[in-house]
Amino acid sequence: MTAARIGVDVGGTKVEAVAIGPDGAELARVRRDTVRGEAGVLAGVLEAIGAVRAGVAPAGVGIGTPGQVQGGVVRNAVNLGVTALDLAGAVSARTGLPTRLENDVNAAAVGVHALRGGDGPLAYLNLGTGIAAGIVIDGRPLRGSGGTAGEIGHLSVDPNGRSCPCGQRGCIETLAAGWAIAQRWRRGREHPVREVFAAAPGDPDAAEIRDDVVRGVAAAVRALALAVDPVAVVLGGGVSRIGAPLRDAVREELRTSAAASPFLSSLRLEDRVELLPADAHPGALGAALLAG
Amino acid sequence: MTAARIGVDVGGTKVEAVAIGPDGAELARVRRDTVRGEAGVLAGVLEAIGAVRAGVAPAGVGIGTPGQVQGGVVRNAVNLGVTALDLAGAVSARTGLPTRLENDVNAAAVGVHALRGGDGPLAYLNLGTGIAAGIVIDGRPLRGSGGTAGEIGHLSVDPNGRSCPCGQRGCIETLAAGWAIAQRWRRGREHPVREVFAAAPGDPDAAEIRDDVVRGVAAAVRALALAVDPVAVVLGGGVSRIGAPLRDAVREELRTSAAASPFLSSLRLEDRVELLPADAHPGALGAALLAG
Repeated sequence: MTAARIGVDVGGTKVEAVAIGPDGAELARVRRDTVRGEAGVLAGVLEAIGAVRAGVAPAGVGIGTPGQVQGGVVRNAVNLGVTALDLAGAVSARTGLPTRLENDVNAAAVGVHALRGGDGPLAYLNLGTGIAAGIVIDGRPLRGSGGTAGEIGHLSVDPNGRSCPCGQRGCIETLAAGWAIAQRWRRGREHPVREVFAAAPGDPDAAEIRDDVVRGVAAAVRALALAVDPVAVVLGGGVSRIGAPLRDAVREELRTSAAASPFLSSLRLEDRVELLPADAHPGALGAALLAG
Repeated sequence: MTAARIGVDVGGTKVEAVAIGPDGAELARVRRDTVRGEAGVLAGVLEAIGAVRAGVAPAGVGIGTPGQVQGGVVRNAVNLGVTALDLAGAVSARTGLPTRLENDVNAAAVGVHALRGGDGPLAYLNLGTGIAAGIVIDGRPLRGSGGTAGEIGHLSVDPNGRSCPCGQRGCIETLAAGWAIAQRWRRGREHPVREVFAAAPGDPDAAEIRDDVVRGVAAAVRALALAVDPVAVVLGGGVSRIGAPLRDAVREELRTSAAASPFLSSLRLEDRVELLPADAHPGALGAALLAG
């Protein structure tokens, strides 16, 4: 049987698993609906692993999950309905495979790095309900001392900005997070971000929200550049599905805001903004690469 | 003869060199006044190397310098009066030793990491005429893709803040850099920072500047924590000579500003702020550790 590593990406709506060969090539992939709660999440992960391990000889499992990851335990994963779950321990016990748990954004960043190629530090900026970055240095995720590396969604860029549920004012999330957009856009319910970008050219309310989103993403790119100086900042997550219009607006904002600053201009931030391809699913791949 | 590595820290006022043994122990140390200009800087570095290499068998040289470092060349080191100088090339040619050039703050960060010990990412926050951080991950300096990792002095934390010479508004430097303090404190000329902190308890102008310095340093600590999550942020550089009063005020500011934020509180930022001991000279040591 083919030697393989298994990676699982646990999301708020889907659990996705892949098996990859020694060369990183994908051997199998499955997607399942997420079932909320500790028991549901564990069962879903085990079922997905079972589906992709058929016919391969797995050496280990990597799992990317939202929430706080400490060792093999995930805590306070609100989107999953999980308060505390020893996911690595339970999966290892049930599969007999060494299992490693990782923050989902960090795992996705490793997957993006593998898909994109290239050297140098890389940042993956996840624009979802919340905003966080995964930073890859020398091919490995930067975890930091307490697992909060890349949490720049809660960097305040304006002391007089909007209140953030985190307790600060002017966090980048208050400008560009999915939750902030949904809170301000009260006309539609299905796809607030898409509706905002579609209405923005003629609608002042939508234009204001759109401009804030663009300013917030640009601020995140700037902060990442001044802290870790990545070769690229790859935009992913739900809000990034806006696609080229978002990427281009962020590039324009970075170009315009740097016009008065030779220092910022010299960093060529606009050239570093990239978009995750719409069909890319780096989460499970990254988790697999972190396995075993 | 004892095997050794040589490190040189080129500063605006002093050139300092050390020779260290295989175990990192200091074998020799010299300090010379800096002579400005390309020829003066090169002569000073060569003289300092000559002084510490007597009686040892050097394997290589590391040099930390202000300015932009690209390969072995330093550019636009305003404090040194250097426009462009192939410092590594010239030193290597004249000494016959492999020579490596590094940004001075990155070199100092490596020295701080060696002096302090401990695992996990570490940040050294240099509070001098300007503000920049050196970030050490797995014992190595984070350089970034273009050498601007750690340049958080030019992170804007207030779109309505003071103008920065870099062309932005509200950069952390406008709050806490030596140049900003000197610009606002017009009563003394010798030691503006010390005078400000000495006068602040009773003098409203001084108190306002002091509060800005403390807010600026706290913002830098917060940004470093949310980007790279270091185990500690070690304060060094001229402004840090204020010592415990600065460190304690920054800790208090971090504690107070986190009071309304369970998220920030959970990061325990105030516990991560440390002060470089007044007698520590990490620059030359770090440069030596990067040699060979």
